[in-house]
Amino acid sequence: MAAQTSAKEARMDASKIEGVAKIGIECKKDADFPKWYKQVLTRSEMLDYYDVSGCYILRPWAYRIWQEIQKYIDHEIEELGVENSYFPMFIPAKNLEKEKEHIEGFAAEVAWVTKAGNNNLHEPLAIRPTSETAMYPYYAEWVRSHRDLPLRLNQWCSVVRWEFKNPQPFIRNREFLWQEGHTAFATKAEADLEVQQILETYRQVYEDLLAVPVIKGVKSDKEKFAGGLYTTSLEGYIPTTGRGIQAATSHSLGQNFAKMFGISFEDPRGPLDGEVRPALFAWQNSWGFSTRSLGIMVMVHGDDKGLVLPPRVAAVQVVIIPCGLNAKASDEDRLSVEQSVANVLIQLKKAGVRAKVDDRDNYSAGYKFNHWELRGVPVRLELGPKDVKNHQIMAARRDNGAKTTLHQATLVSEVRDLLETIQRDMFNRAREIRDANIVFIEEWKDFVPVLDKKQLCLIPWCETSDCEDEIKEKSSRSGLAATEVQDEKAPSMGAKSLCIPMEQPVHKKLIKGETKCVSCGKDARRWALFGRSY
Amino acid sequence: MAAQTSAKEARMDASKIEGVAKIGIECKKDADFPKWYKQVLTRSEMLDYYDVSGCYILRPWAYRIWQEIQKYIDHEIEELGVENSYFPMFIPAKNLEKEKEHIEGFAAEVAWVTKAGNNNLHEPLAIRPTSETAMYPYYAEWVRSHRDLPLRLNQWCSVVRWEFKNPQPFIRNREFLWQEGHTAFATKAEADLEVQQILETYRQVYEDLLAVPVIKGVKSDKEKFAGGLYTTSLEGYIPTTGRGIQAATSHSLGQNFAKMFGISFEDPRGPLDGEVRPALFAWQNSWGFSTRSLGIMVMVHGDDKGLVLPPRVAAVQVVIIPCGLNAKASDEDRLSVEQSVANVLIQLKKAGVRAKVDDRDNYSAGYKFNHWELRGVPVRLELGPKDVKNHQIMAARRDNGAKTTLHQATLVSEVRDLLETIQRDMFNRAREIRDANIVFIEEWKDFVPVLDKKQLCLIPWCETSDCEDEIKEKSSRSGLAATEVQDEKAPSMGAKSLCIPMEQPVHKKLIKGETKCVSCGKDARRWALFGRSY
Repeated sequence: MAAQTSAKEARMDASKIEGVAKIGIECKKDADFPKWYKQVLTRSEMLDYYDVSGCYILRPWAYRIWQEIQKYIDHEIEELGVENSYFPMFIPAKNLEKEKEHIEGFAAEVAWVTKAGNNNLHEPLAIRPTSETAMYPYYAEWVRSHRDLPLRLNQWCSVVRWEFKNPQPFIRNREFLWQEGHTAFATKAEADLEVQQILETYRQVYEDLLAVPVIKGVKSDKEKFAGGLYTTSLEGYIPTTGRGIQAATSHSLGQNFAKMFGISFEDPRGPLDGEVRPALFAWQNSWGFSTRSLGIMVMVHGDDKGLVLPPRVAAVQVVIIPCGLNAKASDEDRLSVEQSVANVLIQLKKAGVRAKVDDRDNYSAGYKFNHWELRGVPVRLELGPKDVKNHQIMAARRDNGAKTTLHQATLVSEVRDLLETIQRDMFNRAREIRDANIVFIEEWKDFVPVLDKKQLCLIPWCETSDCEDEIKEKSSRSGLAATEVQDEKAPSMGAKSLCIPMEQPVHKKLIKGETKCVSCGKDARRWALFGRSY
Repeated sequence: MAAQTSAKEARMDASKIEGVAKIGIECKKDADFPKWYKQVLTRSEMLDYYDVSGCYILRPWAYRIWQEIQKYIDHEIEELGVENSYFPMFIPAKNLEKEKEHIEGFAAEVAWVTKAGNNNLHEPLAIRPTSETAMYPYYAEWVRSHRDLPLRLNQWCSVVRWEFKNPQPFIRNREFLWQEGHTAFATKAEADLEVQQILETYRQVYEDLLAVPVIKGVKSDKEKFAGGLYTTSLEGYIPTTGRGIQAATSHSLGQNFAKMFGISFEDPRGPLDGEVRPALFAWQNSWGFSTRSLGIMVMVHGDDKGLVLPPRVAAVQVVIIPCGLNAKASDEDRLSVEQSVANVLIQLKKAGVRAKVDDRDNYSAGYKFNHWELRGVPVRLELGPKDVKNHQIMAARRDNGAKTTLHQATLVSEVRDLLETIQRDMFNRAREIRDANIVFIEEWKDFVPVLDKKQLCLIPWCETSDCEDEIKEKSSRSGLAATEVQDEKAPSMGAKSLCIPMEQPVHKKLIKGETKCVSCGKDARRWALFGRSY
């Protein structure tokens, strides 16, 4: 109930501000990150808090970004031969429980439907936390021969994970939107290739669309998908809190689920010495990308004025604001500005730029500047009577505040260039910050101090689960920084392994049998990324 | 449990057939419609039965059509200024129950989540059967001034209605996909206009995309949306069963929900004689289009060979099959056919035609013909060595079996024309049949016999609820036709009012005060469409 009260408060908070016609964020990102995050999301109208704790409303300003992501992923996976489909949200208990490790990983968070109308259901139904167990019984029926493979399906849907930890918009929701791909192949090689292809697609969404740098890696045994063979992931970094965050996952399930659910096919080589060969089990993958990505984007790019949106996904890329038309402005000036604004809008729209005019006459230009800055629109164009006369337009960048003068004659190409520059600069800036906060640690004594400086640690690691538990334990004793988000009550904020980066440092090679694990002293296998995390 | 067993049987049934490499439908559409419908859906791989009764798997062959519909509706409503969003699937009981008539309309079918992990929830949560009560508490917070209106949101999601009547794929699902638009306006005129605009968009989807003729009308009081002011709908007709079917609805909610949820705004006229005017309530609409449309499409167009897909929505519009290459074919012939097939594919794809080659070498041409006929692909192109030599291609239409010879030189335009012709012919044929089965009834004695001939009745009607109840009662005594789908056990198959058509017959005008209701003899208000229905 506490969480629900705070949701209500968050909303009242926001409406109080509007009551006095003040807009913007009331606190600094560095000073009170949780409050800042909540205000940015609600006041930019990305999201609103909902009456059920842990569930949030995705308003059009956020949903539009999600649709850009959907479009991108759909296009890429269609190229790979993946088809979209839809499976029911309800999973009978007996199916959910078929794979033991899998159900152990999810059981505590499963929401159950037990009643319909006034009747109790004979058998409670789980709402999917993920759809392996909803889909695979049917994969078993559909796959008979190697000709039925590969079977590659995807669905866009919501899933429910009733986490009892403090929920957080986008980052930890009880219901969230995602896509989940589920594929089956005749050979491990094909399956392994797809794991990488999907991870690469996800990287493109983060880096090319959301301007968020991510690290590709493999999860430790402790952190891999429940019931799977191995998990690859993208890991991000939130500078303000100094925490790592899992950004997307692409799992190899091996043949484990195939064996549990009976997804097998006749050996295409036919009988051997007249004896039918045993059926072969399919190699499977599952992979998912969720709305958590929107939260990461906001956390990485947002600033004290509000949201900062990367141009490629912004619903509005350019806002055009008529300026310099106070009460004393002549009708002639007013008309020339209006015409010029209309002309700019048409030119940009024709060129495929998502542009919008803010010509509301009941707000000042200054109010409008704040309004669109809060909402993160990448470029603001200002057009006044003088600009019209000089055939120029003032452009202000949201990401760094820089102002430039554009020329009416070359406006479209200049705006396009500006948008591309912003996109690139946002990514480069975020990457520089991220890179500066990943520290090579070769002695344990440096580990916790680095975490406390809000950095991530790259350590030579033995890759054993016991060692991972110990690292978590040893690093949880240090106090929590004041800017930690919401999780003040979390039982432990020790570090966990984020991933074993696929791209291992080349200038600091580990020497087999010589380099030791920073924590336990056993032989180190690879460099691994550790950090406090979401 | 009975329904679950039959779902299993349906699947086993299908796999048995595959075991003997036989494909196609085993029964005639006219002879056993329920069996035919089930087989068409499962064997064409549109859909599969799922372990939870009333829930079905939408396979890519069906989902692809749904995506075409989504694209069309999204485009049209974006033009109207509607934005996409996403609200949580859970509705707290207190919100769901706020509008009395509304909850009475849905209470019996609501699925309830009562548990998460091993914990009972403090308050059970409904899974949305529709989202008025999920959304409108927030509309009340977002709308303060007339400047916040219109507020026009849409979401694509699944909803759950736990109907205890016999479920039927697409037509009556416990979980189904739809879009639901929810809008709020300052004036009734704006809201009324939108009701019509949306209904027109839905008509376009049915008639222009799915080639299914529909009738626009207004629902009777008894059949209107629970809690709304008035409901407009599209009504379709299934010839084989002679039943009407509600195809889509666009509701005016009036100010009823606005009053319950407090969606109000300051009177823009400002104070009157120094007194603040009372706040005004918003005028609201809600409108929805669901995957039921796919079921209607299948029922209307399918035939004894299987699915018949309208070209505009078919995942594959043209299948190209290499022919005349038996074991004795020369390498030269084989090569020339292969090259020609590849060339045709490239040409068609370049022109935006969704074409596919079936070059599987383990199946005969005849098997492939059946395979793609079952799946409803609109055009089959056959290419053999002789065709290559004669610069021609054989084309076979799925809808009427007609064959024509196309010329290589003009192939693309000929195929395009053919697809358009098929689309138009499918619609015209369905409309002729529909029109021939709507009968003007001016005396009660003709009413039930017409129903029994699997037709719909257009009657002069008084439009009272008592009369509607009586008509249902009086028409339910007659026996059910053998081809009725699944509902043999339905308690009553009396006729109900489908709609009061917006376009009233012009050649048969009702005379006010003179024309009487066919059933009760009171003054007739308008012609109304009655029929047995889904």
